[in-house]
Amino acid sequence: MDPERHALELIDRVRSKAPRFKDDRITMAHGAGGKASRALVEGLLAPALGVHDLDDAAAVGELALTTDSFVVRPLAVTVSLVLEEGLRADELRAQVESMAAAAEAAGVEIVAGDTKVVERGRCDGIYVTTTGLGRLDPRAQLSPASLEPGDRILVSGSIGDHGTAVMLARGEFELEAPVESDTRSLWPAVDALLDTAGPSLRAMRDATRGGVATVLNELARSSGVAILVQEARIPVKPEVAGACEILGIDPMYVANEGKLVAFVAPGAAEAALAALRCAPGCEDANEIGEVQAEPAGLVLVETGFGGRRVMDMLVGDPLPRIC
Amino acid sequence: MDPERHALELIDRVRSKAPRFKDDRITMAHGAGGKASRALVEGLLAPALGVHDLDDAAAVGELALTTDSFVVRPLAVTVSLVLEEGLRADELRAQVESMAAAAEAAGVEIVAGDTKVVERGRCDGIYVTTTGLGRLDPRAQLSPASLEPGDRILVSGSIGDHGTAVMLARGEFELEAPVESDTRSLWPAVDALLDTAGPSLRAMRDATRGGVATVLNELARSSGVAILVQEARIPVKPEVAGACEILGIDPMYVANEGKLVAFVAPGAAEAALAALRCAPGCEDANEIGEVQAEPAGLVLVETGFGGRRVMDMLVGDPLPRIC
Repeated sequence: MDPERHALELIDRVRSKAPRFKDDRITMAHGAGGKASRALVEGLLAPALGVHDLDDAAAVGELALTTDSFVVRPLAVTVSLVLEEGLRADELRAQVESMAAAAEAAGVEIVAGDTKVVERGRCDGIYVTTTGLGRLDPRAQLSPASLEPGDRILVSGSIGDHGTAVMLARGEFELEAPVESDTRSLWPAVDALLDTAGPSLRAMRDATRGGVATVLNELARSSGVAILVQEARIPVKPEVAGACEILGIDPMYVANEGKLVAFVAPGAAEAALAALRCAPGCEDANEIGEVQAEPAGLVLVETGFGGRRVMDMLVGDPLPRIC
Repeated sequence: MDPERHALELIDRVRSKAPRFKDDRITMAHGAGGKASRALVEGLLAPALGVHDLDDAAAVGELALTTDSFVVRPLAVTVSLVLEEGLRADELRAQVESMAAAAEAAGVEIVAGDTKVVERGRCDGIYVTTTGLGRLDPRAQLSPASLEPGDRILVSGSIGDHGTAVMLARGEFELEAPVESDTRSLWPAVDALLDTAGPSLRAMRDATRGGVATVLNELARSSGVAILVQEARIPVKPEVAGACEILGIDPMYVANEGKLVAFVAPGAAEAALAALRCAPGCEDANEIGEVQAEPAGLVLVETGFGGRRVMDMLVGDPLPRIC
C-alpha cells in the first residue's frame, strides 16, 4: 500500500479519543512506554484519579513537580527506596553514592527520603523513586501542543545507547559490543537551548522508555500536526546500529537516559543546534526533521531511498524495565 | 535493677554519635522504624548521600517537600506506581480510585505520576510512592529540637489500631477482633492545633512505623530532654489492648496511620487538647505525659503501680511492612 494512503487511513484511529483500557491484567507492555502504556495512563489511571491527564511533570504556581528534572531549574529532589531483604549493604552504599554524585553534578540537592524494606523476592534489589522540585524557567513557554508547521526537530546526540547497553549487559543475546549507557544530566543541554533559542523553543522531551519515536508520536498527536523525519540524519552509533539490526529492533524505539528531543521555530534552529553541540555529551546532536501540517497526528520517516513510511507508536516492549 | 539507675546507664549509649551501619545485608528490621532503621538512615544513607540527615520532609524556601503531607498546607502530590506483571486491572482501578477519594477528602490535588511495570514476582502487586508539596504554615515554627521541660505531650486518639488491624487481617495469629485501621488525613487535626496553639506548638509527628514510642524516643534525643509518660493516660481500645497482650506486643510500638503526637507549651495544652478532640477521628485524644530535663535522651513510663521503666526505641520488627 502507498505509505501516504496508509498514513491517511491511520488518521481516524490516531485522532480518536483517549484509549480504553480493555485488558484484564497488567502485562510488561504496559510499562514499555508505547501504546499499552498510554492506554493504562489515559484509559485507567487518569479516569480513576479523576484527572484529565497524568503527566510526569506538573506546574504548581510558578513551581514544577516532576519525575524528570530537565524542564525546570532544579531546586531539590526526594529519594524513596524500596529495598529487598538480603540486599548487600555495599551494593546499596555504592548505588546511593552514585546518586549523590549525579545530584551534585546536576547541582540539585537531595532533601528528603523514605525507606521501605520488603521480604526477599518481593523486589529486585532496589527500587528507587525520585521526585524533583524546580522553578519554571522564564526563558521559554513550553507546551507539547505548541508545535507549528515548519518547526525543526533536534536530537541532542546519538540515540539508543542506553537500551542497547542494557540489552548487551544482560547477556541474553550473546552479543558483545562496546556500548555504554548515555545516562547524564540534561540540564546543561537545556540551559544552552534556553539561552540561545528561549522564546523560539516549542517543546522539549527526554526520550526514555519508548525512545525518540514515542516522543515524536506523542507530540504530533498533542499538537495535531505531522512530523517528517529524515532517516539519514538520525545520529546512531555504528555499534548500536549493528546490535539493533541483529536483534531486529529500530533504534528509534530504544530507550535513552540522557537524550532530549527539542522542537524549535525555524529561524532559531541553526543557532540552537550549534549551542546544543557545545553541551557535554551532545557533540553528535543533529536536526533530524521538521513539522508539517498534514497528515495530522502522524510521524513519517523518509528513508535513504526517498520512500516514506509511518513510524507508529511502540507496541509491546522490546526490552523490559530499563529506565 | 532500679529503673532510674538503669536509665542513667543507658544515657551514654543514647547520647553517642550517629550509629554505624555494621550489617552486611538488609533485613526486615531495617524497615521497621526502630533502631535498625535509624542505623540504616544515619549510618549508611545520609553519609553516602553526603547529607547531614535524610528526613522524610524538608523545607525548600517557604515550601516543603515531604513523603508525609500533614505538617504543611498541602498543595499537590505526585504518585509513582510500580506494578507487578499479572496484576488484575480491577484491583488496580479500585486502589487508584481509593487514592483519588483520599486526596479529594484531604483537599490535595494529584498533579503528576509515573508508572513502571516489573516482571511477575518482582513486586507484591502494587508499590506506591507519593511525594507531597506544600506551603509551610506560618502559624507555627516546629522543630524536633525545640522541646523544653514542662511541655505537654498529646496524642490524637487511640493508638495501635492500624498495626493491630493488619496483624489480624493477615490471619497469622488465628485471632479475631473487630479492629479497623485508623487511616485518615491528619490535616483537620493539625489545622485545629495550629489555630488554637500555633506559637505554643513545639513539634508534631505522625506515629507510623515504630509507633508512638519511637516518635517519643526520636524527639527526646533530638531535643536532649527526658519524656515521662503516664501509662494510664494512653488511649488504647480494649480490643487492641487484648490482641497486643495475647501477642506480647506493647501497643506503644505498634504502627498507626492516622495518629499524631503533638508537643505543646504547658500554658496552651488544655485548649489544644480541647480543640484536638473536636477534629474528626480524634475524640479519644489525650494528654499522656510531659517533658523533663533529666535523664536527657530517654523516655520513661510511669506504670499504674507508680513504678518507672525505660521505653527504649524499637528493636527488630513486630510486624513487617504495614505502612
